[in-house]
Amino acid sequence: MPIPVESFFIDRTSSVPLQVQLQRQIITGVTEGRLRPGDALPSSRRMAAHLGVARVTVVQAYAELAATDYLDSLPRSGHRISDRIERRIDPPAVAPGVQHFDWQRKIDGRFARSARTDRVTDWRQYRFPFVYGQVDPELVDHAAWRDCAVRALGRREFASLTADLYNEDDPELIDYIARHILPRRGIRARPAEILLTLGAQNGLWMAAEVLLGRGGRCAVEDPCYPGLREILAQTRAEVVALPVDAHGLPPEAIPAGVAAIFTTASHQCPTSSTMPLDRRRALLDCASRQGFAVIEDDYEFEMCFAGAPSPALKAMDVAGAVIYVGSFSKSVFPGLRMGYMVADPAFIAEARALRGLVMRHPPGMLQRTLAHFLSLGHYDAQMNRMRRIYAERRAVMAQAITENGLIRANGGAGGSSFWMSLEAGKDSRILAQALRAQGVLIEPGTPFFAREQDGAGFYRLAYSSIAAPLIEEGVARIRAALT
Amino acid sequence: MPIPVESFFIDRTSSVPLQVQLQRQIITGVTEGRLRPGDALPSSRRMAAHLGVARVTVVQAYAELAATDYLDSLPRSGHRISDRIERRIDPPAVAPGVQHFDWQRKIDGRFARSARTDRVTDWRQYRFPFVYGQVDPELVDHAAWRDCAVRALGRREFASLTADLYNEDDPELIDYIARHILPRRGIRARPAEILLTLGAQNGLWMAAEVLLGRGGRCAVEDPCYPGLREILAQTRAEVVALPVDAHGLPPEAIPAGVAAIFTTASHQCPTSSTMPLDRRRALLDCASRQGFAVIEDDYEFEMCFAGAPSPALKAMDVAGAVIYVGSFSKSVFPGLRMGYMVADPAFIAEARALRGLVMRHPPGMLQRTLAHFLSLGHYDAQMNRMRRIYAERRAVMAQAITENGLIRANGGAGGSSFWMSLEAGKDSRILAQALRAQGVLIEPGTPFFAREQDGAGFYRLAYSSIAAPLIEEGVARIRAALT
Repeated sequence: MPIPVESFFIDRTSSVPLQVQLQRQIITGVTEGRLRPGDALPSSRRMAAHLGVARVTVVQAYAELAATDYLDSLPRSGHRISDRIERRIDPPAVAPGVQHFDWQRKIDGRFARSARTDRVTDWRQYRFPFVYGQVDPELVDHAAWRDCAVRALGRREFASLTADLYNEDDPELIDYIARHILPRRGIRARPAEILLTLGAQNGLWMAAEVLLGRGGRCAVEDPCYPGLREILAQTRAEVVALPVDAHGLPPEAIPAGVAAIFTTASHQCPTSSTMPLDRRRALLDCASRQGFAVIEDDYEFEMCFAGAPSPALKAMDVAGAVIYVGSFSKSVFPGLRMGYMVADPAFIAEARALRGLVMRHPPGMLQRTLAHFLSLGHYDAQMNRMRRIYAERRAVMAQAITENGLIRANGGAGGSSFWMSLEAGKDSRILAQALRAQGVLIEPGTPFFAREQDGAGFYRLAYSSIAAPLIEEGVARIRAALT
Repeated sequence: MPIPVESFFIDRTSSVPLQVQLQRQIITGVTEGRLRPGDALPSSRRMAAHLGVARVTVVQAYAELAATDYLDSLPRSGHRISDRIERRIDPPAVAPGVQHFDWQRKIDGRFARSARTDRVTDWRQYRFPFVYGQVDPELVDHAAWRDCAVRALGRREFASLTADLYNEDDPELIDYIARHILPRRGIRARPAEILLTLGAQNGLWMAAEVLLGRGGRCAVEDPCYPGLREILAQTRAEVVALPVDAHGLPPEAIPAGVAAIFTTASHQCPTSSTMPLDRRRALLDCASRQGFAVIEDDYEFEMCFAGAPSPALKAMDVAGAVIYVGSFSKSVFPGLRMGYMVADPAFIAEARALRGLVMRHPPGMLQRTLAHFLSLGHYDAQMNRMRRIYAERRAVMAQAITENGLIRANGGAGGSSFWMSLEAGKDSRILAQALRAQGVLIEPGTPFFAREQDGAGFYRLAYSSIAAPLIEEGVARIRAALT
C-alpha cells in the first residue's frame, strides 16, 4: 500500500537535521508496525516538495535507510519498506520518563461498571448456538436489502442522503411506520409522535435519560432485559425490581412515587408471558392515577405465532402515558441499528433534542434503504418467512425438549426462545460453562435478575440463530450435560 | 397499497358486535387519514381467517361500508378505500373526555432548551447558500460510494454485518484509521486507543458525558462551535468561556480547577486561526500541571491548503492527556454520521461502555462501506478533488471579498469558510435576515459566542455548498445589502 505523503512532518524549530528527522519518522513507523513490509514510500521528488526541503535531503535519507535494511530500493519503482527488520507490534503508549496523565482520577468508571460482560461475541464458532438476539443470515433477504441500498444510493436520492439532516427523520420512513407498522399493533400515531432511534437500546436509553437522568424512582420487571438494567444503573434513579408471574407484571405491586415503569407487556423478556387485558387496563389506570410514564418495549411483536393477535399496550393508551419502543433488529437484522419510539409529542420533542445532542440523527443512508425495504414489500415477505421458519424450529425444539425431559418454565405464544427451568440445586452458569466444551451455547438466567442468584435455576434457549436440523442434537447434549 | 391484515383486531370481551368493530376500525382509519383512497383491503376470506370470525361477518361489514361510500367494491379485485369521503388529516391525540397525561411535570425540557434553533434546513432552496457543514453533492464521489456499499453488502461479508456487534468496531476500519489517517496528523495509536463514533458531535458528547456528566468545571473557546455549547449546557458542568485571539486559545487564561478544556487548535472554529507551536506546548504543560484533559476537535484537518502541514495537538501529547475527535463528515459527506476518537485506553474503555449503553455500536453496514471507501483509495481521491475545488472557490471568494470591500476578521490557512467582520453598529442577524429575501444565506456570528451580542459584529461565509461561478454575485449581494 502506498504511504501517504501527508503522514510526514518536519519540525523547523528543532535542532535535529532535516534528513535525520525524516529517517527517524520512517524508522519509528516501521518498528511500531504502522509501516509494513512492502508499503511504498512517496517518491523523493514528491516528499521533498511536500516537506519543503531539498530533494537531495530525501534521497540521502532513503539511501541511508536502504543501507541499514529498513528500505528496499527497487529499480524504477522507488523505495518500499523492507521485510528484513523485525518489527515491534505493540508500541509504548508513552515516551519513557514522562509522567502519564492520571485518567483514573478523571473517570469514575460508572459506564464500564454497568456494562454487560456475559455476551459471547464468537457465537458463530459454536455448532449449537442457542443464543438470543442474533440472526441466522440465511433468513435475511440479502439480495433485496442490497437492491434497496443501491436504490437509496441512486443519483437522484443521494443528494439528500449526503446532507446533515440536523434533527429531521426521513418522512417516507416515518409515514410507512405510521401507516403500515403501527396499525398492526393497534397504534395510531402522527409524525410528531414518532422518532427514529438507533435500535431499541437507543430508545430505552433516551426514555431513561429524559425521565430519570436527574434521578427519581422507577420500576422494572424482574427478571428483565439486562441491557435495560445496565442503562438504569448509570442514571441516578432508584430502581425497584418487581417480580413477574405467569401473566407478567402485577400492577398492584407497583410502589408509590415511581416516575416510570418499564414493561414488556406483550411478550415478557425473558419469560415470554403475555399480560392479559385486565392487567393492562389496571396498569394504565394506575399510571393515570399515580402519574407515572409506562415504557413499553415491544421488542419482538413480529414473531407471534399462535393465538389471536393482541394489540400493544400503547393501543389502549387513551391518556397518552405510554412510550412505545419498537425495533427492526429482530425483523430486518440486528446489525442494522434502527428502531423507533412512539409517544406524546411533548416527550418526542424532548427526546429529539437529546438525540440531536448525542448524534444529530440516524444515518440517512440507512433510513432511506430501510424505507425502500419496507415499502417494496421485502419487510413483509421476510417477516412471513421468518415466522414460518421460527414456527418450524419452535415445533422441533418443543418436541426435543419434551423428549429429553427438559423443563419449560413458561409457555409464551411466540418469540424466538424458550425460558427453561432447572431442577433444584442446579446452577445454569455451571451448566452453560460445561456445555461450551460440547459446542453448545445457552444463556444462563442470572443476568436477567436483579439478584443474580435468583436466575441460577433458569436458562434461555433461543432458536433464531440455529437451523432446525441441529436443534435435536443440541438439546440432547444439554440433557446429557444435566445427567 | 394493500392494507396488511395484521392491522385489524377484534376485542372478544367487548359487547360491540364483531361486524361493527370491524366497520369502526376501517372508518376510523379513513377519517384519520391512515387508510387512503385506493388502498386495498384484505379479501374477506383472508380477513375472516385472521380475525377468527365467520366470513359472512366480514362480507357484511364490507357491504355496509360500500353502501355508506367508505369503500369501492370492484369486480374481481375486492374492496378499496373510496375517494368519496373527506378525511381529517389530523386525528385527535386523545379521546374526548379523557384526562391527558401531564408530560410537562415529567420533562424538565433541558435538552430542548439547549438545542440550536439557528439552522436553516431548506438551504438548498437558496441560490447563494454560504452555509457551513453541508456539502455540494457534486463533490462527493457518488458512484464510488455506491460501489463500496455494494461490495460491503456482498454475500460473503453480509453475514458479519447483520450481527449485533455488541461493543466491537470493524477491525479493518480501525486499522486503516490507525495506519493511514492518524499518521497524517502525526498521531500514533493502537486499536485500543481508537473508538468509532456517530460523527464528531457524538465524540464531543461522549467526552463531555464521561468527564463532566456528574458536574465539574470546564473551559471552551469563545467563540466556539455552537453544538459544543449545546452539549455542555445540558451537563451539570460549569462552563468558562475563554476569548480567543489571532492565535487561538491563550493557555495563560485557563482558570484553576477545570477538569477539561475543549479546543480547535489546528483550525479554530469559527475564526480559522491556527495555534502556534509554543502555545500548544504551553497548553499541554498546563494540562499536565493542573491535571485537566484536553479535547481536541480536529474537525476539518483535510482542508488545509497553504503553509507547511502542521500536526495535531494530539501528536505532541506524550503524557496522554489529549482526547482527539475526528470526523468523516467534511471529507466523505455530512449525512454519513461517522467519526472517531483517539485517547488513552482507560478513557476509550469508558467511552466504549457509554456508547454500548446508548446505541450498542455504529451500524455495521456503514463501517464496512467506509472501510472499503478508504482502503480502495476513494477517500484520498475525493479529498484531493475537494481540496482543489475548495482552493479555487476560496480564491474566487477572497477576490470577491476584496473587490466588494468586505472585511475579513481573521486569516486562516484553509478550511471551508471565511470569518468576517462588520462595521461598528451593524448587526449580522439583521443582515442575514435581509439577505434571505435576496436568495443569500449567511451565518450570523451570534450563535458562536457565549454572550450572543458579542457576535453581532461577525458572520461566517462558507464555500462548501456553493459553486464557484455563483460566489461573485452572492458576495456582491452582501455588499449591496450593507450599503
